[in-house]
This record gives sequence, structure tokens and C-alpha cells, in this order.
Amino acid sequence: MAPQIAVCGPADCTPQEERDAREVGRLLAERGAIVLCGGYGGVMAAVAAGARAAGGTVVGILSGGDRAGACPDLTVAIPTGLGQGRNVLLVTAADAVIVVGGSWGTLSELAHAMRRGNVPVVQLGGWRVLDADGREPPGVRHAAGPADAVRLALD
Amino acid sequence: MAPQIAVCGPADCTPQEERDAREVGRLLAERGAIVLCGGYGGVMAAVAAGARAAGGTVVGILSGGDRAGACPDLTVAIPTGLGQGRNVLLVTAADAVIVVGGSWGTLSELAHAMRRGNVPVVQLGGWRVLDADGREPPGVRHAAGPADAVRLALD
Amino acid sequence: MAPQIAVCGPADCTPQEERDAREVGRLLAERGAIVLCGGYGGVMAAVAAGARAAGGTVVGILSGGDRAGACPDLTVAIPTGLGQGRNVLLVTAADAVIVVGGSWGTLSELAHAMRRGNVPVVQLGGWRVLDADGREPPGVRHAAGPADAVRLALD
Amino acid sequence: MAPQIAVCGPADCTPQEERDAREVGRLLAERGAIVLCGGYGGVMAAVAAGARAAGGTVVGILSGGDRAGACPDLTVAIPTGLGQGRNVLLVTAADAVIVVGGSWGTLSELAHAMRRGNVPVVQLGGWRVLDADGREPPGVRHAAGPADAVRLALD
Repeated sequence: MAPQIAVCGPADCTPQEERDAREVGRLLAERGAIVLCGGYGGVMAAVAAGARAAGGTVVGILSGGDRAGACPDLTVAIPTGLGQGRNVLLVTAADAVIVVGGSWGTLSELAHAMRRGNVPVVQLGGWRVLDADGREPPGVRHAAGPADAVRLALD
Repeated sequence: MAPQIAVCGPADCTPQEERDAREVGRLLAERGAIVLCGGYGGVMAAVAAGARAAGGTVVGILSGGDRAGACPDLTVAIPTGLGQGRNVLLVTAADAVIVVGGSWGTLSELAHAMRRGNVPVVQLGGWRVLDADGREPPGVRHAAGPADAVRLALD
Repeated sequence: MAPQIAVCGPADCTPQEERDAREVGRLLAERGAIVLCGGYGGVMAAVAAGARAAGGTVVGILSGGDRAGACPDLTVAIPTGLGQGRNVLLVTAADAVIVVGGSWGTLSELAHAMRRGNVPVVQLGGWRVLDADGREPPGVRHAAGPADAVRLALD
Repeated sequence: MAPQIAVCGPADCTPQEERDAREVGRLLAERGAIVLCGGYGGVMAAVAAGARAAGGTVVGILSGGDRAGACPDLTVAIPTGLGQGRNVLLVTAADAVIVVGGSWGTLSELAHAMRRGNVPVVQLGGWRVLDADGREPPGVRHAAGPADAVRLALD
């Protein structure tokens, strides 16, 4: 079975994050990975578009109970009706997680992915986390760019 | 986007139910539908095998938190870690629901599908439900066989 | 810790079911049990009212993401935002399940409770389930009235 | 209905965090609030103990499917079987959220609470979050101590 990589990021993102997400999607598809995403706009739509344009399979795991607002480039849409519970599901279904950009929702996905403890978690830009001593808790792999992010997720 | 049809049924099924499920899977794939199933054995494995053999796409929505025990013919596996909550998810993600055979878990899927109220629910064999007056509550479409089930789900 | 008994039933119920639910609530509270319910109208509101009037503790596990529409007699309200997923949660949190009356939602709770396999499941009136041979699948305890239902759940 | 305050924090905490959590629990109970927590050890057990000793009501929303490992001071235990999905539930059921200490799981709860956008979120010590510009995203209320945390949550 093909590796399944969740790509997480905000609906409200910068143009650079959108370009990065699209490139991540393209590279994942070229490597034969299935892309999982939240299925709406911004980073989610961009990674879906990049993967789909490269002939990949994209699964959108939606917070809503139907397909309303889903981005157009999904192969499969999974409306969950779980609200923020969808964030947990997206991370649980993945063999590795790539985070592009930052928001509270995106941070919850990063945190759940790290909490799992047994899958690679890669961050491309976005928010930073510091522990009570002002140090970054270990484990997150910081990528220099889309190609590095995909390499860190798949290798 | 292709129609997504959930096919529900027990892991512990009869040979006839297994043949029916495989045929339902094949017919759905030939009609261009994506098959959603619970992703384990019995009816779930049979519908996946039938759809996959016909070149279809099969999404297994698993109750477990990883792929352990998943049937081999899934295009995408969605481990949920939700236990029985996965039954709700399977039905929520579907444009129509076909039930083959009976068990308590399968009955919960039939009930959740009917509770949604806005998708076709088709039953092929399996358990029956009677209301307090001994009559069948209206709404479930009973199919004469696999081809009839697929027709009732897609038309 | 006090035993926690889920009482499930439809929002749209008969006057007899409402009286039964209220009596079940009263008897559970008198026996020191905590009542779990779906937290809205009909059977849910009646069992809450019965338990609260007898000084009991009532936890309403709501399908919605806030308290809108919750019945007035809850000690604690747990808005879940899970939609029908709440039915699974209600049953998972219980040491025994009593079902009063019938509906598709209520049937899903009965089915999930039976699927758990390790808690008493008691039915007072409501819908009936028949397997493929026209026989009732074993396991559900049918109660003659509210006192019998409470006895079957707690003993 | 009494205000319901979720108190989130790690099982593996410092002695100071444990003292803080116990004091938060005591103060919440004295103010008539119901305490919601994750129901296991560390901060969760401490806030439960503090609230219970002051005569309060404590609801433990457990990640597991049964009560195994639950701390002793719960009035009601809600085993969810949702794994990390329980973190979302804990936050969804609360009128305000107090975070004591830090961990990836705790961070997910902080993030989900901030993502809700309509409830006070109070942090007492623990991890810090910085956006892409190195600034703290607005909204979290930082408390100087347990009394300040309770005041910020309830006022």
C-alpha cells in the first residue's frame, strides 16, 4: 500500500506557503505517496492541486458533515462531521505528517502528530513551540524547503 | 467527484453474503463509484476484493488506530482509532449505503444511515427491524440481489 | 464510584414512554446510580427530570457543540459536537444501558451497546430486531416495566 | 447550570504544577464551578483532588474505553475510547479552559481551545507558542498564579 502523508496547514495562508504546499503535493505524488489533507482552502487546496496535477491521489478529511466548501482537487472526500475532531483523524491516518505554515488548528495537528510519537513530523515554516525553559521540545524535523520536507517525511 | 458508496456488513458472514458483497463491489467499480467499507474481513474484505478486481478505488475506514488486520484490497486505509465511532464515520462519508448481512455492528450502521435521513439506504438480506406495532419502519430499500442493490443505491 | 447507567430513547416519544423514562430516572437515582442521557427532549428529558427530582446526578451527553436545546434537569452537560457520534459515546461511558422506546437513533444506541458485549442492555418497549432466520438475536434483556428495567440493569 | 471549567495539563508534571493544579481545583470548587479534566495522573489527578476535597464535582473525560487508570477523585468518569480525540471533547465541553504545565497533548488542548475562539483560555506556566514573526499569537491569558487563573477563567 502506498505511503499516506498528511499535509496540514491553514486555510488563511501566505502566497509563499501556498507555493510551498503545492510543491510538496507535486513531489509527494511523484514519489507515489497518497496525500491526506483537511480538504478546504489555503494550504489544503494548494497541496491537493499540486498532487492532483501530478497524477496523485488526494484524500480530503473534512470537518463538516458534507462536502460543502471542499476544494476541487480531491480524489476522495471524507466528510466527518467531527469539527475539530477531524484534526486528530487526519493525523491518525497518516504515516508521516508535514506541516506548512501556522494557525491554532494547524498547531493542534502538529501537537497530535508529536503526541503519537511514532511517525515523522516535519515542519516547513510556521509557528514555533518553546517549553517552560525556552527550548524547543525535541522531535520536530525542520525542513529547508518543499523537497527537504518530502525527503524528511518519506525517508 | 465520483459517488462514494459505503458497503457495510459483518466480518463473520455467510458464503452467500461474501459472494453478494464481492458482486456489489464489482458492479460499483464498473459504475465508477468509489467504495467505502470498514476495511477488515468478511463482507468488508469481499466488497473490497470485488471492487479492486474491477479496477475500482476502495477506502477502508478502520476502527483501529493503525492498519493492523486491514484487508489487502484497500486503495486507501483510514485508521481512525475511534472504535465503534468508525461506524458513524463510514456512513457520514457516503452518498448512499448498502448493507449486506447482519450483526450488531452492521445494524448500528443501518440505523445511523437511516437517521441521517438524506441518503439512500439499501439492504440486501440481513436483519430486520420492527417498530412497536410490529411493522417495519419505512425508508429502507430492500434489494433482490447485488445488481438491484447497486441500482437502488446509485439511481 | 457510583454506577453510571445510560438511558436511551427518542425525543419524539409516547406519553407512556415518557412516564416510564421518568420512573426509570427516579428509581436509578434512589439506587444511587448516576444517569447518563442524550440531554435533549422526550425520553431524555423525562429520565433527567425523574432522576433530578429524586436528588440524583444527571449527565447529558449532547450531539451539538454547545448547550442549545439541552433539557433543564442536567447536572452536567457535555456538548460533544460529534453529531451521531455522541450515541457511541453515551453507550461507551455506561456500566449498563436501558433503552425506552424506539427510533433509528435509539436503535443505533441499542446496537452499539450490544456490540460492546460486556454490559447489560435492557429494553423497555420499543423496536424489535430479528436476524436473517426471523429470530431475535440473543442478549437483550426485555423488562416488564421501569422497576424491572432498573433491576435488570443494576443487578 | 454551574460553569464548567476544563483544567488541562500533563500526566508527567513538576511538583509545582501539581500544587498549582490542586489549588486551581480547590478554588474552582469553592466558586461553584464543575471541573472537567482528562481523568488520569499528574495535573489531572491533582485538580480532581483539589476540587473533590473542597466538595466539588469533577468529571473525568478519559481517552480510554473504560475506567482503567482513572484517578480516584472523579465524581463522573466518561470513558470515550476516542484516544487523542478526547482532548477535543474536553475542550468542547468547557465554558473556559485553564492550562497548567506543558506537553504535546496539553498543547493540543490549548490549540483546540484557542481555535474555538469563543471561550476564555488561561495559561499557568507551561509551553509558549510563537508565530512566524516570533511573536506570541494573541488571545491566551497568562495567569500569575492559581487564584489569578481561576479569576481569568470565571470573570
